[in-house]
Amino acid sequence: MFKPIKLFSTVLLIVGLLVNVAAQESLPVYLNEAKPMEQRIEDALSRMTLEEKVAMVHAQSKFSSAGVPRLGIPENWMTDGPHGIRAEVFWDEWDQAGWTNDSCIAFPALTCLAATWNKDMSALYGKVIGEEARYRNKNVLLGPGVNIYRTPLNGRNFEYMGEDPFLASKMVVPYIQGVQSSGVAACVKHYALNNQEIDRHTVNVNIDDRTLYEIYLPAFKAAVQEGGAWAIMGAYNKYKGQWAGQNQFLLNDILRGEWKFDGVVVSDWGGINDTKQAIYHGLDMEFGSWTDGLSKGASNAYDNYYLADPFLKLIRSGEVKVEEVDKKVRNILRLVFRTNMNTKRPFGSFGTEEHALAGRKIAQDGIVLLKNNNNTLPINLSKAKKIAVIGENAIKVMTVGGGSSSLKAKYEISPLDGIKSRVGKDAEVVFARGYVGEKPKSQDGLKTGDVEETRSAEELSKEALELAKTADFVVFVGGLNKNNGQDSEGNDRKSLGLPYSQDKLITELAKVNKNLAVVMISGNAVAMPWVKEVPSIVQGWYLGTEAGSALASVLVGDVNPSGKLPFTFPVKLDDNGAHKLGDYPGNGEQTYHEGIFVGYRWADKQNVKPLFSFGHGLSYTSFEYGKVTADKKDMAADGNITFSVDVRNTGKRDGQEVVQLYIHDVKSSVPRPVKELKDFQKVSLKAGETKTVKFTIDKTALSFFDAAKHDWVAEAGDFKALIGASSTDIRQTVGFKLL
Amino acid sequence: MFKPIKLFSTVLLIVGLLVNVAAQESLPVYLNEAKPMEQRIEDALSRMTLEEKVAMVHAQSKFSSAGVPRLGIPENWMTDGPHGIRAEVFWDEWDQAGWTNDSCIAFPALTCLAATWNKDMSALYGKVIGEEARYRNKNVLLGPGVNIYRTPLNGRNFEYMGEDPFLASKMVVPYIQGVQSSGVAACVKHYALNNQEIDRHTVNVNIDDRTLYEIYLPAFKAAVQEGGAWAIMGAYNKYKGQWAGQNQFLLNDILRGEWKFDGVVVSDWGGINDTKQAIYHGLDMEFGSWTDGLSKGASNAYDNYYLADPFLKLIRSGEVKVEEVDKKVRNILRLVFRTNMNTKRPFGSFGTEEHALAGRKIAQDGIVLLKNNNNTLPINLSKAKKIAVIGENAIKVMTVGGGSSSLKAKYEISPLDGIKSRVGKDAEVVFARGYVGEKPKSQDGLKTGDVEETRSAEELSKEALELAKTADFVVFVGGLNKNNGQDSEGNDRKSLGLPYSQDKLITELAKVNKNLAVVMISGNAVAMPWVKEVPSIVQGWYLGTEAGSALASVLVGDVNPSGKLPFTFPVKLDDNGAHKLGDYPGNGEQTYHEGIFVGYRWADKQNVKPLFSFGHGLSYTSFEYGKVTADKKDMAADGNITFSVDVRNTGKRDGQEVVQLYIHDVKSSVPRPVKELKDFQKVSLKAGETKTVKFTIDKTALSFFDAAKHDWVAEAGDFKALIGASSTDIRQTVGFKLL
Repeated sequence: MFKPIKLFSTVLLIVGLLVNVAAQESLPVYLNEAKPMEQRIEDALSRMTLEEKVAMVHAQSKFSSAGVPRLGIPENWMTDGPHGIRAEVFWDEWDQAGWTNDSCIAFPALTCLAATWNKDMSALYGKVIGEEARYRNKNVLLGPGVNIYRTPLNGRNFEYMGEDPFLASKMVVPYIQGVQSSGVAACVKHYALNNQEIDRHTVNVNIDDRTLYEIYLPAFKAAVQEGGAWAIMGAYNKYKGQWAGQNQFLLNDILRGEWKFDGVVVSDWGGINDTKQAIYHGLDMEFGSWTDGLSKGASNAYDNYYLADPFLKLIRSGEVKVEEVDKKVRNILRLVFRTNMNTKRPFGSFGTEEHALAGRKIAQDGIVLLKNNNNTLPINLSKAKKIAVIGENAIKVMTVGGGSSSLKAKYEISPLDGIKSRVGKDAEVVFARGYVGEKPKSQDGLKTGDVEETRSAEELSKEALELAKTADFVVFVGGLNKNNGQDSEGNDRKSLGLPYSQDKLITELAKVNKNLAVVMISGNAVAMPWVKEVPSIVQGWYLGTEAGSALASVLVGDVNPSGKLPFTFPVKLDDNGAHKLGDYPGNGEQTYHEGIFVGYRWADKQNVKPLFSFGHGLSYTSFEYGKVTADKKDMAADGNITFSVDVRNTGKRDGQEVVQLYIHDVKSSVPRPVKELKDFQKVSLKAGETKTVKFTIDKTALSFFDAAKHDWVAEAGDFKALIGASSTDIRQTVGFKLL
Repeated sequence: MFKPIKLFSTVLLIVGLLVNVAAQESLPVYLNEAKPMEQRIEDALSRMTLEEKVAMVHAQSKFSSAGVPRLGIPENWMTDGPHGIRAEVFWDEWDQAGWTNDSCIAFPALTCLAATWNKDMSALYGKVIGEEARYRNKNVLLGPGVNIYRTPLNGRNFEYMGEDPFLASKMVVPYIQGVQSSGVAACVKHYALNNQEIDRHTVNVNIDDRTLYEIYLPAFKAAVQEGGAWAIMGAYNKYKGQWAGQNQFLLNDILRGEWKFDGVVVSDWGGINDTKQAIYHGLDMEFGSWTDGLSKGASNAYDNYYLADPFLKLIRSGEVKVEEVDKKVRNILRLVFRTNMNTKRPFGSFGTEEHALAGRKIAQDGIVLLKNNNNTLPINLSKAKKIAVIGENAIKVMTVGGGSSSLKAKYEISPLDGIKSRVGKDAEVVFARGYVGEKPKSQDGLKTGDVEETRSAEELSKEALELAKTADFVVFVGGLNKNNGQDSEGNDRKSLGLPYSQDKLITELAKVNKNLAVVMISGNAVAMPWVKEVPSIVQGWYLGTEAGSALASVLVGDVNPSGKLPFTFPVKLDDNGAHKLGDYPGNGEQTYHEGIFVGYRWADKQNVKPLFSFGHGLSYTSFEYGKVTADKKDMAADGNITFSVDVRNTGKRDGQEVVQLYIHDVKSSVPRPVKELKDFQKVSLKAGETKTVKFTIDKTALSFFDAAKHDWVAEAGDFKALIGASSTDIRQTVGFKLL
């Protein structure tokens, strides 16, 4: 935006500029921000010694790598994300360093962000977490994660954006742009095919090209090409027998070759296993390798990293060309110029109320109302005078645990506290724990603040049921809890079921009180054998700092829920392709036999009814879809087509609806999913209001990946546009033809 | 320097500028660098809560204080100086944090810098240490120190710039300007009257105003007014019954009132003792108070600092006005805008060869040749085929120890290694330890790397003497060693004598070998009972990273020594005023009875012949002074007068001479020193070359501080200009009159 400026100050500024230009002229090129980036890179590179170059391509501590102190090129400091800025740890230990300036705002887990189906929320998320990283002087945020939700057992699904490549692609882009607007690189992870935690360091993924390109790569490609990500993290697992972080196919051929990525490839911590592959296969920065440098005579443990002394020796001996390290250093310099050496980047902010409220807003937009028979929710505070909150997750610290995304949050409002605070004097809020889980083992030794429990499971259950009987309304808050095996990095869940006998407790609660809302805190689908007995169910995710207040606002109706599931809730594990076909977890090899039929694509193909469908989410109001129209019947190969549909809020509350466009290919030369998400819009509608939602697509929305041609192909013929409120709640259909 | 720019790029840049201006217009004022500083400060202040303000005025860790994370105002990170950038320590422990990126270049101790009498060296020192601090992301360097050398027992003299207020004033200014050119504040210390370490936390200094203004304040005033220092550190001791860090007279009346200081006043670590005084007496930032916050229920130890919760409570209760914290915060914001938030500051550099060579250059310029009978030095390598290096200080790690100035140096060349490396194959270099001192106790647990010793003193001495007998040349390297009581913060020396029976060893060495050079490593004068028996003596200071190579270059004559003593070496303690008058160390009270007669002023007045005089320093060549001329006989009160003298290098080597101008007041209404240094110039002269040195003074050089008038007064009448090679080697005199 250009504003008129008074002449005098303009002149002054121009003079200032010219002086400034003169000063810049005397700077070395690499320090001169007026010079083109690539010229600055070559200039810096030309001044560096071989040792300085090699020092840049591997870690110097747990989370940092060397700059060029001689040239004033700053160090790179990474921080774990993707839900908040990790606490400071010791130089070479995972334990927290005991700083007191590092209590961050914990934002909702990325599953919740995906569940907003709201790109504005993604932009807001990226902006605020980027500001937090910047204030903490981190120039690389290790996130977001966009591995596709292939199995509900994957312990790390809560850090990702669901099962659909289109949804994940659209949601990841604004996050990245938001982060990078603070001069902090988003490091998209884990590239690629890290779809389970079990055996993550060793499993070799066998996948056909079409599935790779259609399902597992699109979100990464969007991150790179649309989001402009400055960094990407190689995954732990193997693909075609090479670890993903040192992988010719993923890094050189696809990422750099096909997508023209010009950022840095960072290894996952300890993800590198071979010097030659690390040199030649596109990696730039090696972190977290637990090679025992000291015992081998290195002066510090990092000297023995694959890309440290072994790399140096190979270059010095002439076996490897200097150009190999130069390639990496160019990428790292580009990163530094984009971040630490960009003097125009803002200063960030940290732990602020504004950030906490942003987190709350995202949480409120992502909470999914799964079921709500008889308008059980929202809680009517004029009737419910005694509210029983049951379940350990109502008091459990959820920002700690789960692996590297564990946070030292400035504060965390528990569901119980959130409800109590919101209800105030309108009703009595009583609590019973109901069950108890084991304590999470935090990677960094952080105390969880969890409440100790000495009573037996029977006592807890009995107390809860008795309390529930006496209440006007019961809110059960359970689910998973970021313990090992319950949504946590490094290990997968053992089953789809809830732990700690919650199923039994919920079933019994439903018997003693019909005014029951079950709130599931999890980043994964869980089995719900009691689904028919419970009138209302809320998917509450891991919501961070403002968890309790966000949940309370939905439960009492201050906020009308509008989240939609970013992945399918199957009734049972066998309703999922990977499990049905017996691939998971594999035995060293993991073959994706289900191919492209992941999530709702599998359910549609097999005609299995999910417990809750992809895209599903209710509201306290109702939405009516008018007739869909297309602006043409035939779409040219190089043209586009626009669908319009009126959506009306037919209830008495304002609300938001996520209108979803799926495409069905009527006839194809290859097997295609029954439908695939190709656009969506979240619209805000006041009670009674109608808005016209328009979707415009081109042939990319009709294409599949032709492995033989190694290209995307849209075959001429008939297609259908399906518009609905979920993948199984299609309200309108219209046919069209691709010419 | 303005260079012509091509039209096209100018246009582009102007367009870029206008866009940039538009972007700036949308920034809040405090973030807009185009706005005046004071406007930015008021804008930031107006946005801050009381709690945010109070958080800024005290420490949050050992070396940092809070920024305003909500507003993106960065934290302040201090680093100990003044000889290098201290290693990272734990958040709230003195122990080193084990980082591996913090091995600095250790520069020569400030006594050595002062001994260069070379403002260019001071500018170079400031520049390189500022670059080191900047790269390490420190925005305040705790240094330089300019406490006047009152007694040779002061354990911390090595960190200061000698006994003369004029010399210290001239040398401190370029250091500060150099540091601050990197966007790092120099924090001048210890303001004021911290002239001994013993009882430093409790001693109350009684001093007359004239002495205060003439001797102890000028270097601080120059630091503030000429150097433009952005920070100053309050000393530990008391003055007029108030601790210097919370002192109405020093801080409010003089520093801010008379000198118009607009920077921050930082406490020394643990130097604050009273909340009200800390509030009202001009302090801005409290560090290192060991108040037991936790036991008093504070959430962290820093909440109980005098300027933390106690301050907050007083403001909340209305007993103290918000304006009191606002005053401090304004100063801190000014600091931040000048440093961390100055986007135009350079990026610094760290541990570089360039910095090491700068340190070596300063060291070579500051080494003082005290005595050199019969041209014993330089060592003639065509004759000396076996060189015996004797003495523990030839192998002792000297960058570690001494208190807060202790460093984790990237490397340190010992005198022995420096000599060996320089001599190479020209001669055999043998070594004997000769004596052994206790190991230094490092404040931060750093290993010193010192060589273990199991032999007895007798064995060591015997070995040394036997070796010395067989050598063509003997270099004894001894002195003090930064142990407690031997040049170290927190405690003073017990006597003027050398420790560890060095006197005996030196005397015996002189008997067995006439080709003897004694190199004194110390930051203080030492007694030399053997002075007549030893043909050559070198004052070697603490020289940092390149110590050994700098010393070697002087010993063999690659460098012609040109340092001059910045303080008097008395023969015995009683030749020093403070000791003669029995004041030192005082008993709670310390009265400066010697008044203005410090250093050479005392020696001149009492007519005591020093061991080595202030300003003394020999060369391997000789300099002849021509007749001094004045450009006028009478100087107007508002005029000036210029003295000229030809100085000729009459020897066969190129060299540098420090030509010194002293002023003698022939008649005065008050007692005045016999002479006072009022200007100096270090001139470089090739063998046989003559240069004319000119000094221009005005009446400030003739003035004394009139306590009754509280102003500087120059009385009309006769003066003499004394020009010489030291304070006791006056070569030329010319009289003039002040009208």
